[in-house]
Amino acid sequence: MRTFSTIIASSTPIGRYLISRLSLRRSHAISVKPQASTPPMAAADASNEESLRRTLAEKQSAVDAQGNAVRALKAAKASKSEIDAAIESLNRLKLEKSSVERELQSVVSGSGGGASVNREAFRQTVFNTLERRLFFIPSFKIYRGVAGLYDYGPPGCAVKSNVLAFWRQHFVLEEDMLEVDCPCVTPEAVLKASGHVEKFTDLMVKDEKMGTCYRADHLLKDFGNEKLEKDLSLSAEKAAELRHLLAVLDDLSAEELGAKIKEYGITAPDTKNPLSDPYPFNLMFQTSIGPSGLIPGYMRPETAQGIFVNFKDLYYYNGNKLPFAAAQIGQAFRNEISPRQGLLRVREFTLAEIEHFVDPQDKSHAKFSEVANLEFLMFPREEQMSGKSAKRIPLGEAGIVNNETLGYFIGRVYLFLTCLGIDKERLRFRQHLANEMAHYAADCWDAEIECSYGWIECVGIADRSAYDLHAHTKELFLHSRSQQECGEAFGRKAMDDEGALESKGENQQYEEVAKVISTLLKVAGISHKIDITGTSIGKRYARTDELGVPFAITVDSTSSVTIRERDSKDQIRVSLDEAASVIKAVTDGQTKWEDVWSSYPHHSSESADD
Amino acid sequence: MRTFSTIIASSTPIGRYLISRLSLRRSHAISVKPQASTPPMAAADASNEESLRRTLAEKQSAVDAQGNAVRALKAAKASKSEIDAAIESLNRLKLEKSSVERELQSVVSGSGGGASVNREAFRQTVFNTLERRLFFIPSFKIYRGVAGLYDYGPPGCAVKSNVLAFWRQHFVLEEDMLEVDCPCVTPEAVLKASGHVEKFTDLMVKDEKMGTCYRADHLLKDFGNEKLEKDLSLSAEKAAELRHLLAVLDDLSAEELGAKIKEYGITAPDTKNPLSDPYPFNLMFQTSIGPSGLIPGYMRPETAQGIFVNFKDLYYYNGNKLPFAAAQIGQAFRNEISPRQGLLRVREFTLAEIEHFVDPQDKSHAKFSEVANLEFLMFPREEQMSGKSAKRIPLGEAGIVNNETLGYFIGRVYLFLTCLGIDKERLRFRQHLANEMAHYAADCWDAEIECSYGWIECVGIADRSAYDLHAHTKELFLHSRSQQECGEAFGRKAMDDEGALESKGENQQYEEVAKVISTLLKVAGISHKIDITGTSIGKRYARTDELGVPFAITVDSTSSVTIRERDSKDQIRVSLDEAASVIKAVTDGQTKWEDVWSSYPHHSSESADD
Repeated sequence: MRTFSTIIASSTPIGRYLISRLSLRRSHAISVKPQASTPPMAAADASNEESLRRTLAEKQSAVDAQGNAVRALKAAKASKSEIDAAIESLNRLKLEKSSVERELQSVVSGSGGGASVNREAFRQTVFNTLERRLFFIPSFKIYRGVAGLYDYGPPGCAVKSNVLAFWRQHFVLEEDMLEVDCPCVTPEAVLKASGHVEKFTDLMVKDEKMGTCYRADHLLKDFGNEKLEKDLSLSAEKAAELRHLLAVLDDLSAEELGAKIKEYGITAPDTKNPLSDPYPFNLMFQTSIGPSGLIPGYMRPETAQGIFVNFKDLYYYNGNKLPFAAAQIGQAFRNEISPRQGLLRVREFTLAEIEHFVDPQDKSHAKFSEVANLEFLMFPREEQMSGKSAKRIPLGEAGIVNNETLGYFIGRVYLFLTCLGIDKERLRFRQHLANEMAHYAADCWDAEIECSYGWIECVGIADRSAYDLHAHTKELFLHSRSQQECGEAFGRKAMDDEGALESKGENQQYEEVAKVISTLLKVAGISHKIDITGTSIGKRYARTDELGVPFAITVDSTSSVTIRERDSKDQIRVSLDEAASVIKAVTDGQTKWEDVWSSYPHHSSESADD
Repeated sequence: MRTFSTIIASSTPIGRYLISRLSLRRSHAISVKPQASTPPMAAADASNEESLRRTLAEKQSAVDAQGNAVRALKAAKASKSEIDAAIESLNRLKLEKSSVERELQSVVSGSGGGASVNREAFRQTVFNTLERRLFFIPSFKIYRGVAGLYDYGPPGCAVKSNVLAFWRQHFVLEEDMLEVDCPCVTPEAVLKASGHVEKFTDLMVKDEKMGTCYRADHLLKDFGNEKLEKDLSLSAEKAAELRHLLAVLDDLSAEELGAKIKEYGITAPDTKNPLSDPYPFNLMFQTSIGPSGLIPGYMRPETAQGIFVNFKDLYYYNGNKLPFAAAQIGQAFRNEISPRQGLLRVREFTLAEIEHFVDPQDKSHAKFSEVANLEFLMFPREEQMSGKSAKRIPLGEAGIVNNETLGYFIGRVYLFLTCLGIDKERLRFRQHLANEMAHYAADCWDAEIECSYGWIECVGIADRSAYDLHAHTKELFLHSRSQQECGEAFGRKAMDDEGALESKGENQQYEEVAKVISTLLKVAGISHKIDITGTSIGKRYARTDELGVPFAITVDSTSSVTIRERDSKDQIRVSLDEAASVIKAVTDGQTKWEDVWSSYPHHSSESADD
């Protein structure tokens, strides 16, 4: 049995937080978005900072030496002119030192110096305005609130509702994706198989006296960043050591983190009490299903598992054909140890996820050419490693993205985000470094937006290979509609047995017509599906009638088409251009079918209803 | 301090289940929808059944007596003709008894006899089709599933998404409601205040050997219904006793339920093992918030509490004015003891709730006249008590509904449900009986739909008085923006201090124009708000600019109006009729503001931007 590839085409966290949760430990062996850690500081910046720290240390030595010289002259009761000249020299050295200090300060706190202060002030202003106008409200604030939970007020709800509607239009409708909607309450068995029960953890330390909990890596990160930014007397060597620590923080074991916390003498931030050793804390909210207390459950930490466990049904629904994509919008829950960064890291949020299933032997994408010429800021692995910056590259440039399907979705995400109003200059696609990626991933790109917290991951786009389906393989097989079917899904691109009956010749011209109408329907926001199976028109009508599809357009000429209404079985002839607008008008309630029926020539049901 | 009224204008459960959860014990003193129990059997039917049972008993006695007579004649070796005549008479009596039996059978199992069998078959067919076409999927079925949890597949998602979009259009947009979106994870303090921690319970019994859990009232209900339907030898007195039991089931204490279970000798349905005494089981899914394990929390059992705890902010957002309505769509969670009735009673579902806040001294509604002439099936308390059927009544008929606001929302719910396609003949509005209503409710009506399970509540419309706000009063006050403000909210209709500045005369003509445009915008699905405050146009622009409202229409003539775009501050003049369609076209992306800008006469910003 060959394996089967899964691509998360897009995992857009929208809704309660708009921007995704960030910090899943990258060492997780399970299917979670890896941490969008700050990429390594560009090499140029780092070497500049290092040379400045060295210069600063030299200037400090010079100041110290000159200070000693002045004191020596005074002690030796040298002449006033001699002493004055030495003091003047000391002052000049001090000025030089101050100048280097300012330059270093400006480098370590971001370009321009004081930028972080400005960002902080800007964020606070925006935050205050959003809270005052009820875009968001700290949840349950009359009961003193709970960290990491926020309500949307009326304008926030309007934004969320618009974003979700556009997401459905841009992804689900445009790509004929299969949407599912699964419960948040999830039995343990599912999350054991996916690895979440064992490994969906962060490392935690406790204030040994007060019991307050902190994330171990956050304490080290805060310590390191503060030291680097504020302690200008830090030697270049010590600075390099800290920067290295920050870069590998996610790879450290509990023991290594604990050793570092001890080495730097880090204590509880609020009380300065000693801290416990780090230990893993599972981030899922636990509960119990049913009255017996015997079925453990969790609030789902991501929506994707609901798609994976339904894979077989969805594959069947798609006529046992690849590729296809499934999508889900819904709540996800993560019991963060100590939520911070405002709306960015929260305990409950709305996720919008897509899983696009492809034949692992053929990851080409029919519509890749539509996005290949898009040009935007890309930050490939190579550029990050060699200390360069993100650069504007055409998406189609050979060799940057692993395969066409992954590339296609990067392009679609770019269009989605810029249509939402994200500034092109503050949007980049950053490729994961080799050590950032989960072991099963073939390639992974994050859409990052530059905000007051820096560059923040907001969409993860990964080729997850077959990891997730494999996790549930045994159960998918056990409950297979037929073993053979499932074997096909995992093994090779299934034959389109209905498609094999297709008639050739004229059905090709008509297919073009169908595509034109399809495009017009998409623009009008009408969901639809092209059915080119070889079965009789009557059977095709019966299939969609059962599903409740109100209108069917039958293409049997290149100038006019038939529209059939389900309940009355009435059929009319309309010109090609009118098909979409007639259906749009009836669907929106601007006109009634009876009126349409009386305004267009009728089509005899004998001829088309088979 | 006077009290303040709340009306749940509509609590439409949509989404995962489409039809609402039914069975909250009506004795709950908390703000939950009372149980949509089957209304008492119509008196006429009941008296018919009673008389049939009596007749049947008489016929049985006659058959028994005649049987004895035949045996006596045989023992006395009477003549053959005498014995034959007696046997003929016995057979005639048996036939008469059979006929009464059939009639009784037909009455107890619903009109027409076998109707329940047909309903069952119909339901199974629909259920199978919906499952086969993936409208729904039993959740996690590859892991053997969990009772009461269902996924929506692609067609189910499409239906849900359309229903929710229409709900927003029909209620939120049409009534300028304030939508909020609160987390599902809720700290215990909130649900203690609302009464859910103490009283959101069902009474449960356990199989004493196997530990399997059952709802105590369900066991009695099943026992009673089966006895009434299948045991035709049941005396009229015993039948009346059981019917009374079923009618008061919701009012029984744990002790009374336990006594009845013992009296009837009811055992565990699956094993026939003895059952424990009934005891309360809280229906909320419990969890723990944060890493300390010290903050207990629950998954919310309804969305309304999120609105109540935000009342003060929403009231402020509405300019400290009454009335106003707030709405919320979201997941609700109820850990049912033993879910049944397919998609009707489930453990997680999407609720759509509206809370309409009115001055308790003035429950009139400005738009009541728009629905007053609607005529549909109403089932007032009186009709239910006197054994009559639901009747077609105009909504405005004096004295049926407690007040105009409640009546207005009944009318809007009727329009909503029939627009969705609910058959008018299978939709009725049933008023709660006095003993059904929670103690705080002034009046309560359920929209009930007749389906294969009988008449099922799907929308609850209740005047809940000030119960909910009182429950959170202390906290609402503690965190008041100003004590006075909150006093006003609870005490009297706040003065519109900005409105007091309104200029009179011409603003009235313009108000009419504004209303015409507002109607056109509603039809186009564009959310908007009329601002008739007396502040300068410039200030009004600034207020909406901050909120991010892209377009403002200023009415300063009765023929043409100004449209101003936020980002460019450009202003154009368009005719009254065009205003809505121009904005619709730009919003939908059919045209760009730049093109509109170049096609219409410009308006100098000096004159309008103040």
